[in-house]
Amino acid sequence: MTDAPVAPAWRIDQWLNAKAPITLESLRGRVVFATAFQMLCPGCVSTGLPQAQRVREAFPESDLAVVGLHTVFEHHEAQGTAAALRAFLHEYRINFPVGIDAASPRGAIPQTMQLYQMQGTPTTIVIDRLGVLRVNMFGHVDDLRLGAALASLIGEEVASASGTDAAGGKPGCDDEGCRISR
Amino acid sequence: MTDAPVAPAWRIDQWLNAKAPITLESLRGRVVFATAFQMLCPGCVSTGLPQAQRVREAFPESDLAVVGLHTVFEHHEAQGTAAALRAFLHEYRINFPVGIDAASPRGAIPQTMQLYQMQGTPTTIVIDRLGVLRVNMFGHVDDLRLGAALASLIGEEVASASGTDAAGGKPGCDDEGCRISR
Amino acid sequence: MTDAPVAPAWRIDQWLNAKAPITLESLRGRVVFATAFQMLCPGCVSTGLPQAQRVREAFPESDLAVVGLHTVFEHHEAQGTAAALRAFLHEYRINFPVGIDAASPRGAIPQTMQLYQMQGTPTTIVIDRLGVLRVNMFGHVDDLRLGAALASLIGEEVASASGTDAAGGKPGCDDEGCRISR
Amino acid sequence: MTDAPVAPAWRIDQWLNAKAPITLESLRGRVVFATAFQMLCPGCVSTGLPQAQRVREAFPESDLAVVGLHTVFEHHEAQGTAAALRAFLHEYRINFPVGIDAASPRGAIPQTMQLYQMQGTPTTIVIDRLGVLRVNMFGHVDDLRLGAALASLIGEEVASASGTDAAGGKPGCDDEGCRISR
Repeated sequence: MTDAPVAPAWRIDQWLNAKAPITLESLRGRVVFATAFQMLCPGCVSTGLPQAQRVREAFPESDLAVVGLHTVFEHHEAQGTAAALRAFLHEYRINFPVGIDAASPRGAIPQTMQLYQMQGTPTTIVIDRLGVLRVNMFGHVDDLRLGAALASLIGEEVASASGTDAAGGKPGCDDEGCRISR
Repeated sequence: MTDAPVAPAWRIDQWLNAKAPITLESLRGRVVFATAFQMLCPGCVSTGLPQAQRVREAFPESDLAVVGLHTVFEHHEAQGTAAALRAFLHEYRINFPVGIDAASPRGAIPQTMQLYQMQGTPTTIVIDRLGVLRVNMFGHVDDLRLGAALASLIGEEVASASGTDAAGGKPGCDDEGCRISR
Repeated sequence: MTDAPVAPAWRIDQWLNAKAPITLESLRGRVVFATAFQMLCPGCVSTGLPQAQRVREAFPESDLAVVGLHTVFEHHEAQGTAAALRAFLHEYRINFPVGIDAASPRGAIPQTMQLYQMQGTPTTIVIDRLGVLRVNMFGHVDDLRLGAALASLIGEEVASASGTDAAGGKPGCDDEGCRISR
Repeated sequence: MTDAPVAPAWRIDQWLNAKAPITLESLRGRVVFATAFQMLCPGCVSTGLPQAQRVREAFPESDLAVVGLHTVFEHHEAQGTAAALRAFLHEYRINFPVGIDAASPRGAIPQTMQLYQMQGTPTTIVIDRLGVLRVNMFGHVDDLRLGAALASLIGEEVASASGTDAAGGKPGCDDEGCRISR
């Protein structure tokens, strides 16, 4: 799959739980699991982030990188500071690196969220060992299928497919997550 | 129990989800269920606040008042503003009145939290129809026992006992809640 | 409420977890909580019986009796013997008394189930201190409301109301329970 | 791994939910997921069997066979008949094939359970496309790791490892499952 486009570079204002900025290039060769979340998104707190923590425990770091992307698209005054996010990560004992998605010069939706055309939070992003975007899905993914997908990508010698995308829905937060109103 | 002391007045900086400030005097004659919480306390989010919402649905307003007390004793920069709390209440669909416990002139623990000698969050406070403090308990209360206690107090003509108090534990947040380090 | 009719006597073939047969007369003066169940009813196993165990733990025996009624109305060959039920109670660690509802001379629905016009399993039966039937409800009852109802009845000096009844539904088993097809 | 021993043949008295007896030979070429259970084992009912149903939904039949093994080692009088098991499978809506492990001429532990040296129920068995036993584990397996393991085996061209085995524990039933007392 050498012809498949690599996933767009993340645009991050600041990294927490990391010694240095993290780039997709620096993760090349490993599978990357990223969860895009907001600290005040109920579905992220109850479902998305706990799953990311389980993923971190289930797979070795040498095969799989786990990253959070704090993609704040609403309530910027409440959840838009690094201090607020740092307190949240501390209380919820989230230890994997979290990047704060770069504020957009215009509009509420931050830059990485726009680049990836995410539909809201939580969104699950999976990138293969060659840097190709393979999963880009809004809402809940069940553990069995996610485990299967990650293991398949970890086992791949050469990447071989392109990303999928979730269906539509109403803006606002529900049990599934928080959806962007476009 | 006409001799029992009434519960100390709450010291509140600001009320959300309320048209006017709420005093214990104004609630006299009804049983009062209050949950003291912090918006970044995992045990409050997963357990304490959902239970308060269930209590609100299970009992009529004419018999029982349900109130939240935002008792921020840590991470003041992240959860100490009305704007942050307002966003949180919106996302978690909490509609009952919430008072922001008054900041202390010295120390991190706010004034109502100090007055009631709370041990952390979540803390359950129950006050009877006569204004007497009957429950003051840190951590999780199971629904069956809570329902029984509230119904008993609602059925009381004359209040007849004093408050209880929970046991000790280590400072910090765990599955039960966030405990003050004194 | 001295005029209200007392609950009909249970018709039981055999008692397990009991030294002697249990009659409603022998329980008079205490509130009685009974759960009607079938050992192969998924909703009874996941919801009704665990709740009965929580009720047993939450209230003193001197105020409240907890009893199971094994009301087998289907799969008699699989769940209709005392040996099968005894094994089930052992594996699920159910220690309160369980009466095997008396087989009907004609029809699959046992006698107590018919007398109480139960709609299926699980069914919650609550009888007050005077022996009056106060709750007779098919399906799930939430813990908060159940705790409140039981505490109110325990606190009653004189009983004062009559039973309620649940709404209809399709025969067969679903998440709520197993409904009789009449 | 052409040298690895194939999994021992199952010894089954009767198959339910199947048109004809199922042999490991007939499943060769597909990965096989089997859950050994007892219908009165609480951990099987709450955890093992629902997971098997999720596995059935998550993977295509052409890649993965899902099978139940009813390995009754206690309460034979209550759960030892095909009629009892058939009623159970009906109520719990289990549609994959279930084999009744062959009764042992001596002792309570049935023959397949002995051959595989299972420690109790639930036990998870996974056999690869070449027929080699790869997982043989008592107790709960989390969905993420199980999904990963199954996907890895489905992706394998040539099998390459041998089975694992779970640790010891006390006989009897607990939240994990029912353990054989040997």
